[in-house]
Amino acid sequence: MSEKGHVTIPTDMDVVKETLELARKWGADAVRDCDGTDFPKELSDAGLKVYATYYTTRKDNDWAKENPDEIQQMYLMTPIYTAVDQKLKVHLMKGLYPDMLTPNSRDDITRWWEVVDRTTGEVVQVSDWSYEESTGDVTIAAVPFHDYTVSFLAYIMWDPVHMYNAVVNDWKDVEHQMTFDVRQPKTHAFTMKRLRKFIEEHPYVNVLRFTTFFHQFTLVFDELAREKYVDWYGYSASVSPCILEQFEKEAGYKFRPEYIIDQGYYNNQYRIPTKEYKDFLAFQRREVAKIVKEMVDITHEYGKEAMMFLGDHWIGTEPFMDEFKDIGLDAVVGSVGNGTTLRLISDIEGVKYTEGRLLPYFFPDTFHPGKDPVKEAKVNWVTARRAILRKPIDRIGYGGYLKLTLDFPEFTSYVESVCEEFRELYTNIKGTTPYCVKTVAVLNCWGKMRAWGNHMVHHAIYFKQNYSYAGILEALSGAPFDVKFISFDDILENPDILKGIDVILNIGDADTAQTGGEWWCNPTISAAIKEFVYHGGGFIGVGEPTAHQANGHFFQLANVLGVEEERDFTLGYDKYNWDVQKHFITEDATGEIDFGEGKENIYALEGTEVLAKRDKNVNLAVHTFGNGRAVYISGLPFSFENSRLLYRAILWSAGDEKNLYKWFSTNYNVEVHAYVANGKYCVVNNTYEPQKTTVYQGDGESFELELKENEIKWYEI
Amino acid sequence: MSEKGHVTIPTDMDVVKETLELARKWGADAVRDCDGTDFPKELSDAGLKVYATYYTTRKDNDWAKENPDEIQQMYLMTPIYTAVDQKLKVHLMKGLYPDMLTPNSRDDITRWWEVVDRTTGEVVQVSDWSYEESTGDVTIAAVPFHDYTVSFLAYIMWDPVHMYNAVVNDWKDVEHQMTFDVRQPKTHAFTMKRLRKFIEEHPYVNVLRFTTFFHQFTLVFDELAREKYVDWYGYSASVSPCILEQFEKEAGYKFRPEYIIDQGYYNNQYRIPTKEYKDFLAFQRREVAKIVKEMVDITHEYGKEAMMFLGDHWIGTEPFMDEFKDIGLDAVVGSVGNGTTLRLISDIEGVKYTEGRLLPYFFPDTFHPGKDPVKEAKVNWVTARRAILRKPIDRIGYGGYLKLTLDFPEFTSYVESVCEEFRELYTNIKGTTPYCVKTVAVLNCWGKMRAWGNHMVHHAIYFKQNYSYAGILEALSGAPFDVKFISFDDILENPDILKGIDVILNIGDADTAQTGGEWWCNPTISAAIKEFVYHGGGFIGVGEPTAHQANGHFFQLANVLGVEEERDFTLGYDKYNWDVQKHFITEDATGEIDFGEGKENIYALEGTEVLAKRDKNVNLAVHTFGNGRAVYISGLPFSFENSRLLYRAILWSAGDEKNLYKWFSTNYNVEVHAYVANGKYCVVNNTYEPQKTTVYQGDGESFELELKENEIKWYEI
Repeated sequence: MSEKGHVTIPTDMDVVKETLELARKWGADAVRDCDGTDFPKELSDAGLKVYATYYTTRKDNDWAKENPDEIQQMYLMTPIYTAVDQKLKVHLMKGLYPDMLTPNSRDDITRWWEVVDRTTGEVVQVSDWSYEESTGDVTIAAVPFHDYTVSFLAYIMWDPVHMYNAVVNDWKDVEHQMTFDVRQPKTHAFTMKRLRKFIEEHPYVNVLRFTTFFHQFTLVFDELAREKYVDWYGYSASVSPCILEQFEKEAGYKFRPEYIIDQGYYNNQYRIPTKEYKDFLAFQRREVAKIVKEMVDITHEYGKEAMMFLGDHWIGTEPFMDEFKDIGLDAVVGSVGNGTTLRLISDIEGVKYTEGRLLPYFFPDTFHPGKDPVKEAKVNWVTARRAILRKPIDRIGYGGYLKLTLDFPEFTSYVESVCEEFRELYTNIKGTTPYCVKTVAVLNCWGKMRAWGNHMVHHAIYFKQNYSYAGILEALSGAPFDVKFISFDDILENPDILKGIDVILNIGDADTAQTGGEWWCNPTISAAIKEFVYHGGGFIGVGEPTAHQANGHFFQLANVLGVEEERDFTLGYDKYNWDVQKHFITEDATGEIDFGEGKENIYALEGTEVLAKRDKNVNLAVHTFGNGRAVYISGLPFSFENSRLLYRAILWSAGDEKNLYKWFSTNYNVEVHAYVANGKYCVVNNTYEPQKTTVYQGDGESFELELKENEIKWYEI
Repeated sequence: MSEKGHVTIPTDMDVVKETLELARKWGADAVRDCDGTDFPKELSDAGLKVYATYYTTRKDNDWAKENPDEIQQMYLMTPIYTAVDQKLKVHLMKGLYPDMLTPNSRDDITRWWEVVDRTTGEVVQVSDWSYEESTGDVTIAAVPFHDYTVSFLAYIMWDPVHMYNAVVNDWKDVEHQMTFDVRQPKTHAFTMKRLRKFIEEHPYVNVLRFTTFFHQFTLVFDELAREKYVDWYGYSASVSPCILEQFEKEAGYKFRPEYIIDQGYYNNQYRIPTKEYKDFLAFQRREVAKIVKEMVDITHEYGKEAMMFLGDHWIGTEPFMDEFKDIGLDAVVGSVGNGTTLRLISDIEGVKYTEGRLLPYFFPDTFHPGKDPVKEAKVNWVTARRAILRKPIDRIGYGGYLKLTLDFPEFTSYVESVCEEFRELYTNIKGTTPYCVKTVAVLNCWGKMRAWGNHMVHHAIYFKQNYSYAGILEALSGAPFDVKFISFDDILENPDILKGIDVILNIGDADTAQTGGEWWCNPTISAAIKEFVYHGGGFIGVGEPTAHQANGHFFQLANVLGVEEERDFTLGYDKYNWDVQKHFITEDATGEIDFGEGKENIYALEGTEVLAKRDKNVNLAVHTFGNGRAVYISGLPFSFENSRLLYRAILWSAGDEKNLYKWFSTNYNVEVHAYVANGKYCVVNNTYEPQKTTVYQGDGESFELELKENEIKWYEI
């Protein structure tokens, strides 16, 4: 049995006794408050480390009201309206929750707002539109039957997360927490004082859990207080004239609202990023890091630890980018929705420790009669554990209202076992790099900045359009590979980045940032990848890899992949290659493979082996190109079976089938992870049923094994 | 009972008696020979009109051999090859049937061939490549890992249709019929003499059935004599240096092989046509018409009729374009695969009569034990009949080896009934315009030039990618609408073209010529259509209508259609409009509607009514825009039920639901057609089962009716 510790639990004024009991039961060594809870002073001497949630940009409406010019702002675009005569009236707040946002007409609207003719793409000159404050309408001198939008700045009068929490928890009569912008001069000065004051007034606090720093990811609600738009990676609420003027100076060119608005797509991570947007992000990273460092330094001055919550107002910190490491934060904590979001935390460098907040959050939506929080906890844990075994977080924790769990004894018992198991595996693997079979690189427009978060719209949320691609990332998050994330820019800057990579993956829909779109028409890029494969590299394309219609191809690397997509232009060509072949990659596939939202129009070229198809549509195919090998997969939702298929595809494309039986379980529901430096390895049953398997060690020796549901067994090497 | 006549049958040397018997049975008044059959002189006095198939471009290998420089040519592109070092060798004939094609190195290959770097899109200068005649290889000085193609001219040494017939019928030891090019000077002069000679030597012939004129639609076979590439509308076999030099002079700019090659897509009808390709087609139409007229004039000089076969070498005649009407042809005959291909013939103007060759063709692939030619004939007839009732051909006929039908008495009896029925309906409706409920226009890049042939790759052939769209055209081919085909160019040239149209349809996949792609970014076009709808017009979009990614929309007319496609860029927007509504359009839908290859990512905007969806994907939706109405349909394969749905969609979008019960059958398997000028109407059972229905006349009066399988009943108004 491992020691206690490595666990954080929430508390509140009314559960002092219960907090202590649960802390004992779960082996917790830290307690925390949450949004809507308060820390009971009685616990400050309980031998537990105390985290205090610190809200940098809210919970001080007096300040916000006194400084309305420094309330946070966001860029918004109205819907696209069609003019039907020469005058078009647009009501700015249509579709927006009125209490949350107020258009900013304090600053020069002719400078910071923009009316765009979306039929021509041209900006409407400012003399051709006007804003009427009293009605909230913009009136445009229009060309009949052209489309128009207004891009405008609005003050965030109700913090979106506070609003979300209030709506979900049905909080009555709470004052809407206004926002303030730490990047602006008055609030900046105020914030540093406020932080000192907070620390001084909470001497028992050990860890300041910043929730978070300055900019909320994009989150907007509609008239009915329903979520209207969300982007966990969105920067559109990180703006203000003050910030943008600073950006202009640094960038050396004039700022346009369109750089943020992006036709209403707000540069979400599927959009191929423009130069201006990349410039803006780089600027924000530097500026945010600078001020975060100030706050961390103050925290350290008082002998406290500074922990960042990777969520809410995390925008601008970008933990995988260089600026982050110099901030000096002690820790990062984040919510763990699955394996990929675990890696989003555990892969962060430059902090002393990381902590994962497991699910479920102790909120009434889960903890009420008829719901099964144990099930949610089990799914969450088994999913996270796969990734923890590859790259562990240092601590786990929970959030919400502790009180709610008290009626669910089965839940508190299950969490006890999770805590025990986490400590055991942490002890066994800490400090080592697990055995990696191959180095794989996910290639897209974002590279390391969006590592593990590819295809994520909102934190770990399912979409019909993303699960077949996110499944690949989820499989990788717990697989024995060294996973890198590289961008097209990276290759241009340093083609040597491809050295040391065994297999490149390109995953997603055509003409998105995830596959690269027009980047594939850059000869340097396409030639570099073709050369990489030709000389023995592996390439795995999922969905519409390398796709952009040009030069006689939709898949620009069709000659490497050996497949193409029928977009009607090649209907005249007869296609004869439809016979399904047996193959190393599909050897463990038990029945029909689940390709998820597969494409419908993929066909194989001559010389390609089709491994799976449905009707006249290829779902899985392999092709050799010179000394290298390519695999095409139409989509691969996460499952243990699919994870195995991907594992085999990576081995095959790297030309290394012979090493399959090394740290390997014949049953794909069971995985083997080796920690050679620590002289340990484990065999883990990822399912909630008992499993039988044959386990192969690193030397190829094998033994039969039976595992109980969800069991993990540790061995010495 | 109608008189005999209006029917053409094939004959051959060995079936004289049987020809006469069948002619009597079917009421045929004309006989014809076919490719591979000969006309028996004994029949020349049998009181039957005699058609002689006349092959303008083949069946004279002596001439072809004597004039190898005037053998027909076609442009071909090699596959796209990736160079792996600085030298790339490309074998021109890879993937091509060797006996069919021979590269043309007689003419200046540096002028007429082109090597293209398909990675950059740039032409490789001629000094950087060379052709070795003995090996058939082009050697290119390449940039490693760039892609290359060679575009080259090849002589057509075996006529593709002759080759097809030889392969299908397993003809042994036939001499391959070579081609010759009537557009070139020597062959031109020779052809006119040859035609005269033929007519003089066949005095008993009444009708010269030209099969056809000068240019074969694109048809290429691979090494295994399998069809490799086909385009019924393809012009790539209508070229030669002689023709292209003439084109250059007329166009006023230098010809490039790429104008025909088009990245290997050969300007197939899904490609948005370039200016150069449109110029080339216009040039070909004029030049072909000129020489066809010469031949027609000679035919007339001898007192014979000139009939054109709309198939094989029909390229350049373009029967829906203005040049055609002035040729003076007496008749057009074509193969009838379904309703749309019937209209392809019957809608032709400027000839005295049209004839439809019904299926099956009397070939051994259908007429052999175990096959069911009756079934094929029934399906063909019932499908064609729908269209004939809207716009009749003047005659029907059959082709192939008559002898083969003799073992199928059920077949000859069935055809007898078809002939009777055809004559009856022809008599009842000839000369009138049937009652049209609405005028609808199919809008795409081609307009009338590709009328009824939209989405057709090869004559009436099914493709997974086209049947859901072709289904709309098939429904229209037999529906009581005046159907127009207009192009974007038409609207630019004359915006008034939209006047008099009730409903516009835009049908197909994104960024194809069928929907228009970038045309929708032309403000004149998009504004014209929006204005049309706003002022009361109807708009029906099928598949990915008006789609091109730009300006914040994929569906450029999203504001009209009320739907958009999720291409990942709007995943961040919450979508709440999923509830299915009851509606006029779906009132006759019995169960789950078959949308065919529906799109998977369509969502409804606010204010749109969703009428059908599958999971989170909208298949059918309606939206009002000003006084107009739009309908979105994800796809609609042809069926009587779907035909009804389209009928209702057109009525609804035109705002004319109240006129539904006019010349209407409540049972969608039964249709009503009125010929007011002739004082007649008919009720037709389109199925092979008996049907009950309520029939509504033009005045709204109704009666109950039972129809036998496939029955058609005629009434006086």
